[in-house]
Amino acid sequence: MTSTQLNCRTGGELYFKCENFQKVAAFKARGACNAVFLLDDAAKRGVVTHSSGNHGAALAWAAAKRGITAHIVMPANAPLVKKSAVESYGGKVVYCEPTISAREAACAKLVRDLGLELVHPFNDYRIIAGQGTAALELLEEIPDLDIIVTPLGGGGLLAGTAVAAQGMNPHIRVIGAEPAGADDGYRSFRGGAIVQEATANTICDGLRSLLGENSFSLIQKHVDDIALAGEKNIVAAMRMTWEIMKILIESSSATPLGAILEGNLDVRSKRVGIILTGGNVDLDRLPWQ
Amino acid sequence: MTSTQLNCRTGGELYFKCENFQKVAAFKARGACNAVFLLDDAAKRGVVTHSSGNHGAALAWAAAKRGITAHIVMPANAPLVKKSAVESYGGKVVYCEPTISAREAACAKLVRDLGLELVHPFNDYRIIAGQGTAALELLEEIPDLDIIVTPLGGGGLLAGTAVAAQGMNPHIRVIGAEPAGADDGYRSFRGGAIVQEATANTICDGLRSLLGENSFSLIQKHVDDIALAGEKNIVAAMRMTWEIMKILIESSSATPLGAILEGNLDVRSKRVGIILTGGNVDLDRLPWQ
Repeated sequence: MTSTQLNCRTGGELYFKCENFQKVAAFKARGACNAVFLLDDAAKRGVVTHSSGNHGAALAWAAAKRGITAHIVMPANAPLVKKSAVESYGGKVVYCEPTISAREAACAKLVRDLGLELVHPFNDYRIIAGQGTAALELLEEIPDLDIIVTPLGGGGLLAGTAVAAQGMNPHIRVIGAEPAGADDGYRSFRGGAIVQEATANTICDGLRSLLGENSFSLIQKHVDDIALAGEKNIVAAMRMTWEIMKILIESSSATPLGAILEGNLDVRSKRVGIILTGGNVDLDRLPWQ
Repeated sequence: MTSTQLNCRTGGELYFKCENFQKVAAFKARGACNAVFLLDDAAKRGVVTHSSGNHGAALAWAAAKRGITAHIVMPANAPLVKKSAVESYGGKVVYCEPTISAREAACAKLVRDLGLELVHPFNDYRIIAGQGTAALELLEEIPDLDIIVTPLGGGGLLAGTAVAAQGMNPHIRVIGAEPAGADDGYRSFRGGAIVQEATANTICDGLRSLLGENSFSLIQKHVDDIALAGEKNIVAAMRMTWEIMKILIESSSATPLGAILEGNLDVRSKRVGIILTGGNVDLDRLPWQ
């Protein structure tokens, strides 16, 4: 989708890839589908992952497509809409404490006890390759982009986008957009090593993860820069997208436009692809209220 | 757009024509554009209309395209987002009391004093013909619809849709969907004469008008039925469209799905076109809050 009004406001020519219209309303359907259908017959015992939400729903959806069961480890404080989504696709929700170590322990236990296949939300080449297909489709339709931007959380989407985009056009600039309140990706990229940090202060619940080793090595090799967005501009960008484009996007999806509004990503006179990553929002708890 | 989930819930095969993505975020751009560009050179003095919002913005937009000025008479209690829209397109807002007679008097005065051309929001064949192009485009893409449904307010969209749709396919059923709290159209259709009624009790601010003579005569001739929707189901349909389809529609646009949820419009096993009329919503005042 495009918007004359957003082009006027930003000075760029913006092309939005609307993954909020994707199955499970998030790009995560791509990676999950790729991973589940690459598994051999041992996968019949089922798959397991930990996820703050969209990857969980996506894995449940993909597993149902293949006729196997997905177990989704999820923090007890995840948005209700994301829990319901997992269950509506037939996934089994397993609750844990809202820490990364608790999630990983719960996953490991399920792998051990039930013989499940772990499908990590981002640190998995099958997932990374799948996520890259959003950029692939965007570039098939709009080949001559100067820049492509995705939000940055665990790094799976950004890594997959970078590989796909630079494979199709070596001159394209690939940028990750990250909340300033969860800037571990920015600092890792600048410092050349993954920053380990347990806290994240952002409304973007999809972008609170630390980088994975596999996604980080691809990001170091193929990504040009990471641009930060403050919470105020993320919320402004989210609301602006709703009001002007008339589409629902979740807060994480607003970080690229947020980084533009923040002045950290110059798109003037550029043709810019932006991946709108998802549209799962709790309509009773909007961030501007 | 289509939605597997909404098809499952309703039992029909629903095809949504997304006029929330139209210029000025409403189908009203179609009629206004047709009317303004059909005017002769006398139109250079400008155009005037009264409108609770979307037609006003549309006329301002269309007038700007032709380089003339639009004066929009609007009740002082119209949603802020609709006033701002008119002004953002260069239209001049003239406030009046929130009654139909006050609107008409203010328009008549401007026609008299400034020599403006009146472009009525719905009771004008140029407007009716323009609005019909939404159905024309939908049927060009999906020719074999069994039913086409539009919201019913002043009747311009329903009349234009009926003429266009039955011109392309004489067997298609054309249905208007109206809030039960503003059922003057339903009663007019059943009774065979326009009901004059000054009050309307509905959140659908775009559907509070009485029918026009010109639109009513076309509706009598070409429309198969009017289906009512209660407020509760209109709000449910609006929220469902946001949550499932990830698009913003205004309450008026939700009346067709509202009538289906109400049990007043049977779409089971039918291919059904639905015109989603607009997406202008005040995000600080959502009807489920």
